[in-house]
Amino acid sequence: MDQAAENSTILSGCITHHQEWVDIMKDVQSLYQELISKYKECSVLGSVTGLLHWDMQTVMPPKGTELRGEQLAALSGIVHSRITAPRMDELLTELEAHRGELDSDQQACMREIRRDQKRAVRIPQELVEEISRHSSACHEVWVKARANADFSSFAPYLEKMISLMRRQAEYLGYAGTPLDALIDQFEPDATAATFTRLFDEIKAANLPLLRKILDSPVKAERRFLEREYPADRQKQFGEDVMRRIGFDGDGGRLDTSVHPFCAGILGDVRITTRYNVNAPQQALFGIIHETGHALYEQGMDPAHFGTPLAEAVSYGLHESQSRLWENLIARSMPFWKCFWPRLKELFPAALSDVAVEQWVLAVNHVQPSLVRVEADELTYDLHIILRFEIERDLFSGKLSVSDLPRTWNRKMEEYLGVTPPNDGKEGVLQDVHWSGGSFGYFPSYSLGNIAAAQLWYAMRRDLPDIERKIASGAFDQVLAWLRTNVHRQGRRYTRDELMQRATGKPLGAADYSRYLTEKFSALYKL
Amino acid sequence: MDQAAENSTILSGCITHHQEWVDIMKDVQSLYQELISKYKECSVLGSVTGLLHWDMQTVMPPKGTELRGEQLAALSGIVHSRITAPRMDELLTELEAHRGELDSDQQACMREIRRDQKRAVRIPQELVEEISRHSSACHEVWVKARANADFSSFAPYLEKMISLMRRQAEYLGYAGTPLDALIDQFEPDATAATFTRLFDEIKAANLPLLRKILDSPVKAERRFLEREYPADRQKQFGEDVMRRIGFDGDGGRLDTSVHPFCAGILGDVRITTRYNVNAPQQALFGIIHETGHALYEQGMDPAHFGTPLAEAVSYGLHESQSRLWENLIARSMPFWKCFWPRLKELFPAALSDVAVEQWVLAVNHVQPSLVRVEADELTYDLHIILRFEIERDLFSGKLSVSDLPRTWNRKMEEYLGVTPPNDGKEGVLQDVHWSGGSFGYFPSYSLGNIAAAQLWYAMRRDLPDIERKIASGAFDQVLAWLRTNVHRQGRRYTRDELMQRATGKPLGAADYSRYLTEKFSALYKL
Repeated sequence: MDQAAENSTILSGCITHHQEWVDIMKDVQSLYQELISKYKECSVLGSVTGLLHWDMQTVMPPKGTELRGEQLAALSGIVHSRITAPRMDELLTELEAHRGELDSDQQACMREIRRDQKRAVRIPQELVEEISRHSSACHEVWVKARANADFSSFAPYLEKMISLMRRQAEYLGYAGTPLDALIDQFEPDATAATFTRLFDEIKAANLPLLRKILDSPVKAERRFLEREYPADRQKQFGEDVMRRIGFDGDGGRLDTSVHPFCAGILGDVRITTRYNVNAPQQALFGIIHETGHALYEQGMDPAHFGTPLAEAVSYGLHESQSRLWENLIARSMPFWKCFWPRLKELFPAALSDVAVEQWVLAVNHVQPSLVRVEADELTYDLHIILRFEIERDLFSGKLSVSDLPRTWNRKMEEYLGVTPPNDGKEGVLQDVHWSGGSFGYFPSYSLGNIAAAQLWYAMRRDLPDIERKIASGAFDQVLAWLRTNVHRQGRRYTRDELMQRATGKPLGAADYSRYLTEKFSALYKL
Repeated sequence: MDQAAENSTILSGCITHHQEWVDIMKDVQSLYQELISKYKECSVLGSVTGLLHWDMQTVMPPKGTELRGEQLAALSGIVHSRITAPRMDELLTELEAHRGELDSDQQACMREIRRDQKRAVRIPQELVEEISRHSSACHEVWVKARANADFSSFAPYLEKMISLMRRQAEYLGYAGTPLDALIDQFEPDATAATFTRLFDEIKAANLPLLRKILDSPVKAERRFLEREYPADRQKQFGEDVMRRIGFDGDGGRLDTSVHPFCAGILGDVRITTRYNVNAPQQALFGIIHETGHALYEQGMDPAHFGTPLAEAVSYGLHESQSRLWENLIARSMPFWKCFWPRLKELFPAALSDVAVEQWVLAVNHVQPSLVRVEADELTYDLHIILRFEIERDLFSGKLSVSDLPRTWNRKMEEYLGVTPPNDGKEGVLQDVHWSGGSFGYFPSYSLGNIAAAQLWYAMRRDLPDIERKIASGAFDQVLAWLRTNVHRQGRRYTRDELMQRATGKPLGAADYSRYLTEKFSALYKL
């Protein structure tokens, strides 16, 4: 072969290779688009499910229950069959083999979709259905057992629920304890060991702090909270605050329901609350809490609508957004410097003889109590830690269901110094979670507190005069910081990566302990 | 073969045959169950679509539009793919071959499911999508054209919509004119010829009656309707009436929306209205109208939930239920004998100097006008007939789009004696229907009036003292009669069979003409 011919062959070889590369790129991108469009359909159908739940809890007539059950079952069946379809696995496998041809956002999406798909594929449909059936039965028994404070009637149902959850954990796989597989649903990559470590740190700081507060001569005067605060004015105030802190009223709603929640995605994010005319702090901080969740959803990047990049990174991170607004911001003096005049204007009679300092102390009042959902900011985590430790020991085999009430009561005394008078609403049967198989869920609540404090200090580092801004009613920088560092990231990074990037250090309990100590030392003059 | 052996063989042959027969029966029944469960899933998903529409028109925040569009598109795609799936056709074909082994209800279900499936299969997906895309564009242009009373800007879009509808008609098939295929979507087995015949009868009776009324010395005094009727009291009255006539408040709701409608199925049937404080009759009769629709849905047989036997037989029959309650019952003197005291109690100022006879005459006032949705009971059909005749002539080729405004105005003058001042809100562009491709829909409104009158006379034949019952506030017999003869039949019979069974004669306009003549002769002392 002469040189010219050889060159020509080389050249044509290059062209061929270039063409192949272009073809592969085109193929990879079209496979990726197919993956995304399938995932997006699941997201959209998931948002319909969210709306059906919102409707059920706010406006659905009582006789709609059966139809609603059929609607939810039909949708969940469709989503499950879509995500477990063989084509989904083919697409992921093919794309994983060409990872290098995807950009980093695309790689992140692929990683997260594979995560969801793996979980869905691993659990056999018959187990999903058995859990769903047992949940209904178990929930019904729980409602009665709770009302009658009769743990023994609930015990065999709980026993069975735990064994179903163990089966689920076996299918999902885990390195340490079966509980790890369940925790992973809510907090990817976190384990029982993660929480044991974090919670031991929190206990070490909280328990002595709690003792000091209880010994402090400072006592909050709270009687004025029991005066009359008309519901429509509570709502008006709540809506004022929502709007001021950044909730987009054109892309969401505030309604009333028995159990407050936030539902929806970009464009339509709805929160609910309930009003107690003799306890305005409940709806008020409830609204701010749910607004925190809503701001996360409203803050997602519309360019990534329907993909993991417009979804929350974990349950705990979602909770960090609600807690940050509810506790770190809205229970602080700077916040009330801004909103106190408006509050007094709306409730002139009830607050005529109250000073802002009294109000702030009252809404931060620390008092060990029996019921988690009524707990104050400081003791809340102790309720969670108790539940987590019980779950951990149930799944490691250290604790049996029959010992649950005794262990519950013993830990209540040890951590909170209170003794449940019964096993019902004020005792071991108080929460709905276990009756529905939600083991491994509780820790996310405290992880929310921990992450919120760490994000808060990082924000204050980046925006040194942020508390002055808050006091003047300018919340845009807080929101902008959260948008950039949390909301618009979606599931681009894992929770731990996201925390590292946003705060410059790994997720840990130190900032949270520091925050609680600083805050309550000041309030209670410790 | 000896006799015993032969007998044994015969016997065993019988057993074998019997076994085969049992197997076929079992097979047929299990195929039937598979068919029903597939259809039911579509019904349930359809009810989700209904809820999304309800939500969109009552509570959805403005920025939810895009997400809602995605949700609706995803659901309609799923339902379409389910109903057109090859397995659906297989099941129907197999079952049709064993029709004799199904009972009559099952045969009716199969017939109706095949009807729906055939329609869905015949229209290619690309045409569905093209119509959907063009509808959006066409609707947008219509909104502007209507506001500017500029028919010429709308004409090319309407032209294209008609040609798309012609294509759809070709796919669906028809015996007479392409419009027949479109009418069949709303009124199975009815054709343009059916409506030409019915409407010619109505015109022959209505037009002379209208002349006589306009010449009558009796004039309704209506100024008191423009006084102030607070919206919350209108709602209260509406809810009273709904409950009294049989609406199950535990299985439905009343809300507010710009365009009133009824949505939902068994267990959750929601109606809407809008309130005009200076025109209480609008919300009041609107609520009763929608309640008539709701009673049909609430009256379906729960044992057949999700099947054609718990679905309305046609659009016109649905409309007969709303018109029967709104016009034949609620605009009658017996009805107001019952509700007048309550109405005066709620609006003491506005009605202080009004007698019940004045009220009844006022809410039955006949006055030719330009706008269909504001038309009185008598002239309403003339608006419909005009539209139907235009559609008929457009699709038969007798009328071109460019001639539409002239023909519209000429017919308005001929039938109603009024001249539209423009082509916009008061003229040819007033209705939304054509911009969305809903040709063949209008006649169902008048068919509702016709069927309502025929059902009403049959009910009075069966329950001779029903007007006395109504005057005393006892509506249970009316509802029971409708339940038995209409609601609980679902799609068991065709519309024409159902009317024959309920009234003892084929559907015809005679009773309707008789009803209008009797009613308005009495009111206007003709």
